[in-house]
Amino acid sequence: MYDIEAVRRDFPILSREVNGKPLVYLDNGASAQKPQAVIDAVTRGYGLEYANVHRGLHYLSNLATDKYEAVRGIVARFLGAPDENGIVFTTGTTHGINLVAHGWAMPRMEAGDEIVLSVLEHHANIVPWHFLRERQGVVLRWVEPDAQGNLDPQAVLDAVGPRTRLIAVTHMSNVLGTVVDVAAICAGARARGVPVLVDGSQAAVHMPVDVAALGCDFYAITGHKLYGPSGSGAIWIAPERMAEMRPFMGGGDMIREVHRDSVTYNDPPMMFEAGTPAIVSQIGLGVALEYMMALGMDRIAAHEAGLRDYARARLGGLNWLQVQGDAPGKGAIFSFTLEGAAHAHDISTVLDKKGIAVRAGQHCAMPLMEHLGLTATCRASFGLYNTRAEVDRLVEGLELCHDLFG
Amino acid sequence: MYDIEAVRRDFPILSREVNGKPLVYLDNGASAQKPQAVIDAVTRGYGLEYANVHRGLHYLSNLATDKYEAVRGIVARFLGAPDENGIVFTTGTTHGINLVAHGWAMPRMEAGDEIVLSVLEHHANIVPWHFLRERQGVVLRWVEPDAQGNLDPQAVLDAVGPRTRLIAVTHMSNVLGTVVDVAAICAGARARGVPVLVDGSQAAVHMPVDVAALGCDFYAITGHKLYGPSGSGAIWIAPERMAEMRPFMGGGDMIREVHRDSVTYNDPPMMFEAGTPAIVSQIGLGVALEYMMALGMDRIAAHEAGLRDYARARLGGLNWLQVQGDAPGKGAIFSFTLEGAAHAHDISTVLDKKGIAVRAGQHCAMPLMEHLGLTATCRASFGLYNTRAEVDRLVEGLELCHDLFG
Repeated sequence: MYDIEAVRRDFPILSREVNGKPLVYLDNGASAQKPQAVIDAVTRGYGLEYANVHRGLHYLSNLATDKYEAVRGIVARFLGAPDENGIVFTTGTTHGINLVAHGWAMPRMEAGDEIVLSVLEHHANIVPWHFLRERQGVVLRWVEPDAQGNLDPQAVLDAVGPRTRLIAVTHMSNVLGTVVDVAAICAGARARGVPVLVDGSQAAVHMPVDVAALGCDFYAITGHKLYGPSGSGAIWIAPERMAEMRPFMGGGDMIREVHRDSVTYNDPPMMFEAGTPAIVSQIGLGVALEYMMALGMDRIAAHEAGLRDYARARLGGLNWLQVQGDAPGKGAIFSFTLEGAAHAHDISTVLDKKGIAVRAGQHCAMPLMEHLGLTATCRASFGLYNTRAEVDRLVEGLELCHDLFG
Repeated sequence: MYDIEAVRRDFPILSREVNGKPLVYLDNGASAQKPQAVIDAVTRGYGLEYANVHRGLHYLSNLATDKYEAVRGIVARFLGAPDENGIVFTTGTTHGINLVAHGWAMPRMEAGDEIVLSVLEHHANIVPWHFLRERQGVVLRWVEPDAQGNLDPQAVLDAVGPRTRLIAVTHMSNVLGTVVDVAAICAGARARGVPVLVDGSQAAVHMPVDVAALGCDFYAITGHKLYGPSGSGAIWIAPERMAEMRPFMGGGDMIREVHRDSVTYNDPPMMFEAGTPAIVSQIGLGVALEYMMALGMDRIAAHEAGLRDYARARLGGLNWLQVQGDAPGKGAIFSFTLEGAAHAHDISTVLDKKGIAVRAGQHCAMPLMEHLGLTATCRASFGLYNTRAEVDRLVEGLELCHDLFG
C-alpha cells in the first residue's frame, strides 16, 4: 500500500505556502524536493561527522569515508549494476555525460565518425557531442520521434552506419515524458558493435532501472532529481568502456604517483574522481536512494502511472489546451500550450499566484521544441509525493488562465 | 577583539568527543568544519526554499535563484574582484584549475610550449598540466623552494623563457604553510607577457586576498576549506583571459541556442557553468564567506599568526621532532616527522586515540615530498577556531608518541 499522506509528511517543504496558497509542486522535472531523512543526513554530516575522505587516518575522516564509500554500493543496487566499481561519482548527469565525452569519446573519434542522437535529448546530452562536432569534425545524426512523441528503436538503429561510434539517447523525455525502449536499442546496437549512452536523469526517478537488463554501456543519473542534494550524482560505466577511458579532471585521489616528469593514475572508478568530492551531498544521495527503494520503485511507478492517467484525462478535457506528446507508457510529465494569446510564461506566472509551481520555457531541449514548432511550453512534472487533488488544483489554475487569456 | 570562545561555539562539531576525548581538529588543511550559520542555510535551503535555479518562473525558483546568484557578489567581495562577472562557480579548486586547463590552456598550447610550476604545488595544480604534457607535448618547468621552504619569486621568473605560456603557482603551501609572494611573480610575469594561475585553496582561508592587487589572471578557491559545504567553490578569471576561453563542460544554462547542426554559447561566466549546479552548497558557501568577513580576514590572520608562533615555539622545543619548512610569514600549517621508528601514520593513529585529528601521508604533494626526501609527514593544520590549549594537547600527544616509538 502506498500511503501518500505519510509520504508527503516526509517532505517538509510540502507543508509550506506560496503566495498564500498551499504549495503544489509540479516542477519535479527540473528538480525534486528532499525528504527529511536526506536533510537530516546532510545536517548530521556537517554538524557532527564531517572531515575530508580517503586521505585521513583519524576517526572523523574514517567515519566520513565509510559513509561516503557506502553510497557506491547503494547506487549500484539502485541501478542494478553488477559491481560497485562500475559506479563513478559525479556532480550530476551533465558532469557524467561530459566525463564520457572528454574521457571516452574525444580521444577515439575522428572527423567523419558519427554519433546518433534523438531529437528528444536534453542539452546535457547534446552540447558535449557538439563539442566533438566543432572540435573534431564528428557528425551528429538525429532521429525524430513520431507524432505521438514516441521514439521507434528501429529508427534509431536505422540511423547507425559504418562510421557510427556511439548512440546517445534519453531513457525518458524531460519534455514529453516519453519512455524510450532503451533495451531494444541496446540489443540492436550491440549486434552492430556500437556503444550506447543513456541519459537516465528522468527515468531513474520514475521507474525501476536495471542497467544489466538494459544492456547499455553508460547510464547517467543526477542526485537532485532523485530527491537528493544538488551537486550529487553518478554514472554507471560498463567495464569494457571504463578500460578504454582516459582521465577527465586531474587532481588528488585520481592518481597513484605524481612526479615532475610523469604521472600514473589510480584504478577506476577513482581514476575519474579528482579532488575533494561533494562528500556530504553524496552521502545524502545515498539516503535519498534508500528512501526511494524502501518505498519501492515499482510502487512509485504505479503511483505516478495513476497520476498520469488522471492528469491525462483531466487535461484532455480542456479543449483549449494542447498537450504535447502522448506516447504509450509515458511518464507523468505534461508539456502544453494554451490556445489564444497566452505565452507559456504567462501561464506559469498565473499558476504561481495560486501556489502552483510549473516550469515554462524550452526545457533545455531546443531541438525538440523546433521539431514541435514551438518556442516554449508550460510543463507540469509529477513526483512520488504528488496527488490527484494537485491535478485538480492545476486544472483549476489552467481554467483561470483560459478565462484571463483565452 | 577576537572572541575565540564565541567563535568555537559557532561550530557544533567542536563540542563533540572523539575516542572519549574532546575533539582537537587540526586537519583544516584537508577540510574545515562548518559554522552553525552554514549548516542552517543548507537545512533551510533544502527544507523550505528549494527549487532549481535560472529556468523557473515560480516563487521557489526565483527565491533559490536570487540567493544563489547573490553568492557571486559575495565571492567577488571576498577576493577583491573588480566585477562579479569574473567569478565562475565551480565544485572546488580542482574543478577550477581543470576548467583553465581544458578551457584556456589546451586549445592554445602546442608541443614545446612551457608551463612553470613550483615544487610546492598540490596535485590539483600539477596533474591537469601533466595532461597537457602527455597529450600535447607541453613541457613542465619546475622551480624548487629553498631550504626553509621559501619560494623565491625571482627563481620563478628566471624559469620563464620565450616558450612559457603560463605560470601556475600556489599562494600557500598545503604542506609547509609557505606563503608565496604572488604579487612579485605576477608583476614580473606581466612584464614578460605570461599569465599566472594562482591556487588559492589554502591562502584564501588564512589571509586577506585581493586579486586586483595581486595582479594574477586566475585565482581558484574551494568552499569546503573555507568553512563552507563540500562541493562548492569558485574561480576568479581576468576578463582578458575569460575572453580567450572555450567552454569546458556542455549542457544546460551555458548555451544561448542549440540546434541540430549548431550551438551558440551564453556569455561568461555562465558559459562555463553547465547543468544544475550545487545550488544549496553554493548558497552555503556565501554564508561561510560572510561569516569569515564578519570576523575579519585580518583578525583571522592575526589569530592564526599567534597560533603559528606558539606552535612553532612549542614544537621547536621537541628536539626529536623534525618540522619541515620555516619560511618567514608562513601559515599555521606544520608538517613533521618523528625521529626513530615511527611512521607518520603511526603518529596520527596515536594522536587520534587522544581525540586529535591530524593528517598523515603525502598530502597530494608528491613532488614536494620527493624534494624533501620523505615519503610521508604528519601534518597539523590550524584554522580560525583553534586555540593555544589545542597546541598543548598536540604537544602532549607527540610526547606520548615519542615515548612509544622514540
